[in-house]
Amino acid sequence: MTKQLNDLFDFLRFPSISTDSNHVSDVRHCADWLIQKLSGMGLDTELHETARHPIVIARNTHQADKKTCLIYGHYDVQPVDPVELWDSPPFEPEIRDGKIWGRGATDNKGQMLAHILGVEETLKEKGELPVNLIFLFEGEEEIGSPNLVPFLEKHKADLACDVIAVSDTGMVAKGVPTMGYGLRGITCCEVTVKGPSGDLHSGLYGGAVANPATAVARLVASLHDANGHIAIDGFYDDVRPLEDWERKMWAKVPGVSDDDTLAITGSHAAFGEPGFSSAERLWARPTAEVNGIGGGYQGEGSKTVIPAEAMAKFSFRLVPDQDPEDISSKVQAHLEKHCPEGVTLDVEVGHHGKPYICDPHSENGKAGQIALEKAFGKAPVLIREGGSIPVIQDMKEILGVEPLMLGLALPDCQIHAPNENFYVENFEAGIQLNRALLQELA
Amino acid sequence: MTKQLNDLFDFLRFPSISTDSNHVSDVRHCADWLIQKLSGMGLDTELHETARHPIVIARNTHQADKKTCLIYGHYDVQPVDPVELWDSPPFEPEIRDGKIWGRGATDNKGQMLAHILGVEETLKEKGELPVNLIFLFEGEEEIGSPNLVPFLEKHKADLACDVIAVSDTGMVAKGVPTMGYGLRGITCCEVTVKGPSGDLHSGLYGGAVANPATAVARLVASLHDANGHIAIDGFYDDVRPLEDWERKMWAKVPGVSDDDTLAITGSHAAFGEPGFSSAERLWARPTAEVNGIGGGYQGEGSKTVIPAEAMAKFSFRLVPDQDPEDISSKVQAHLEKHCPEGVTLDVEVGHHGKPYICDPHSENGKAGQIALEKAFGKAPVLIREGGSIPVIQDMKEILGVEPLMLGLALPDCQIHAPNENFYVENFEAGIQLNRALLQELA
Repeated sequence: MTKQLNDLFDFLRFPSISTDSNHVSDVRHCADWLIQKLSGMGLDTELHETARHPIVIARNTHQADKKTCLIYGHYDVQPVDPVELWDSPPFEPEIRDGKIWGRGATDNKGQMLAHILGVEETLKEKGELPVNLIFLFEGEEEIGSPNLVPFLEKHKADLACDVIAVSDTGMVAKGVPTMGYGLRGITCCEVTVKGPSGDLHSGLYGGAVANPATAVARLVASLHDANGHIAIDGFYDDVRPLEDWERKMWAKVPGVSDDDTLAITGSHAAFGEPGFSSAERLWARPTAEVNGIGGGYQGEGSKTVIPAEAMAKFSFRLVPDQDPEDISSKVQAHLEKHCPEGVTLDVEVGHHGKPYICDPHSENGKAGQIALEKAFGKAPVLIREGGSIPVIQDMKEILGVEPLMLGLALPDCQIHAPNENFYVENFEAGIQLNRALLQELA
Repeated sequence: MTKQLNDLFDFLRFPSISTDSNHVSDVRHCADWLIQKLSGMGLDTELHETARHPIVIARNTHQADKKTCLIYGHYDVQPVDPVELWDSPPFEPEIRDGKIWGRGATDNKGQMLAHILGVEETLKEKGELPVNLIFLFEGEEEIGSPNLVPFLEKHKADLACDVIAVSDTGMVAKGVPTMGYGLRGITCCEVTVKGPSGDLHSGLYGGAVANPATAVARLVASLHDANGHIAIDGFYDDVRPLEDWERKMWAKVPGVSDDDTLAITGSHAAFGEPGFSSAERLWARPTAEVNGIGGGYQGEGSKTVIPAEAMAKFSFRLVPDQDPEDISSKVQAHLEKHCPEGVTLDVEVGHHGKPYICDPHSENGKAGQIALEKAFGKAPVLIREGGSIPVIQDMKEILGVEPLMLGLALPDCQIHAPNENFYVENFEAGIQLNRALLQELA
């Protein structure tokens, strides 16, 4: 195994699950490892404490005549359950079929480390970089980056830059370089519905008390009409219509047809808002999803109870120009209005992130496109993305620079799911991308 | 502690959870303990194997000039989760505030053992019983008695009797003796909805694939209309209307008003079918309940996935003259018809039990009423019950005798839930009830 892959394996072995309080020290150890790696390359490093997980900064010696490039990444990862569905343990990386398997392989450790190793190669070869570099790595992206905005505000001057690059998005297909110019935003919430003071025998009390599991299901069902449209009052008010050039371009982008979506996801039938293609549904239309639902007896056999409570976790993906706070208020009003009688409803609002859109034809955008072409040998396609990286919009607003999204994640990389993986060839292309990008921007 | 309470504690310590395959040997040990107790009293005992948990039979020496009385009970219990809500461990019984606390204290070990100890007292005092006795105790009531009907059919001749008594039902309030003349039936099923082949990132794929958790919620929500009526085609076709005398009597029965139901269950507001009182909803109207629902991420924090599958466990309480097989077919047809697009539906049909109704004014019924009056010092009220004991109807059909329901369970006894309990005074009254009953029937 190459030293570069060896570094990646070391990085992937940390179970740096930011959402789980049992893994606080694992996240910390992962940050410590990064500091060691970056300072070993000759960069100046800083470990910044936050209310939860630390932020890692690294820079070369800045020179007034060079452009400053900030590269963002995150070293935290998603939880791993259902862990029994992994073919190999999530934190014991291995290579099979030309891919690196493990939690974080693509999202975001693999892509992030490719930038670090690109810089390491350049430094080894040339002794210096063509740009002033700022690496900014956080440990809270998977929980909505709660401490990054205050950090950006506080260190705005130190982080001043001419261009921002982020590799935390996707390629539409293997070998097709992809430049992203938009992202969906997000707002999350969790509802708890409470009924009787304890679980009840469904024979003795069924019919005369409200069932919280039924109530939660009715709330979930109330979010969409029969056609799959979201039924929350005012939800679509600020949705920016698709432009003609986008619809035309996306129709030609490989790997995102309705059939591709079915094949990649293993779904049984096409599904979604009428009048839109899969690509349009994913990149330019908002969603209301239940990410988790639970209540009552879920074990083996039957247990005839009316549960005392039931819960559901929701996330709403937002598109320009929806505002997460506005949508969150509308969601709460909807849930309160539609909560069935006989139960109480508690809504806990989760993290927010604004949607992002920028001009892919700007000067920096063109430099990004050229770097992608150099790394992959062909011109990139221009797309938006369905995922949410709220910090992209935050960096735009606070630092005044529109981040370039130069993603290396493939559609079958299983991020956030069991068997996450990253092509070795994309890892290597990422290293080359970083080298070409710094040169191109300089 | 009295020897009788000591016996009950020994009986309650067996975690005889019939639905859980991890507890097979605990159920067996509990049956063995019963055999030992009953043969120690001088009864002839038989342990009958079934496909799952054994049936225990005990009898005295039968004499042709005596009436034969069969007493039914069950020694299996419900699961105990959520176990963290118990104030004392479910299988380490203890007495607090005049009550015995533990899983099975009321349902059915406490009530069943009261009959055994009544017989023991009579035998000690008189050397013989006034009737030919058959104790019939099964270990599968909580999983729908799958092996009892074949057993009854096979041993029909040996089990021939003049009267059947069962104490596995409720008293409407403390100190109010209660005779039951009806029970709801039941049919259960579990649905699994499958979508994508694995959990998906809700940002990358949300909006273009069907979400199984949403689909399951829409199925649950489809079971009722906005007024709480069950929306399954033909569901109410065979429901026997309430008779005037029942509505009048039930209106006067203590402890079952709408306010009582709220207070007992700790619910927030009255709920149920319009036009019926709580007692009527519980005793004479059918239900559609979700006993468990689950899918996606239910842990701490958020995880933005579209789950690959989601499930729900349903039970339907039935009233005369609904037929469980007919309702089960209608439920399946409804679920298939209402399953949203883009997912597959699997329905696993669970256990069935017919509803039961009999004449409380029959000769045996009157004997039961007198025995209750002797044990409690006042005349019993006549009610139906909301729970399901399918074997009651099965015994009626196979043995040709209408079982008497002489219940000792109080509304706050928490059966099937955490902190199940049984008043010591009801345990003692149960012992006296058995003595009076055998005498009265003789």
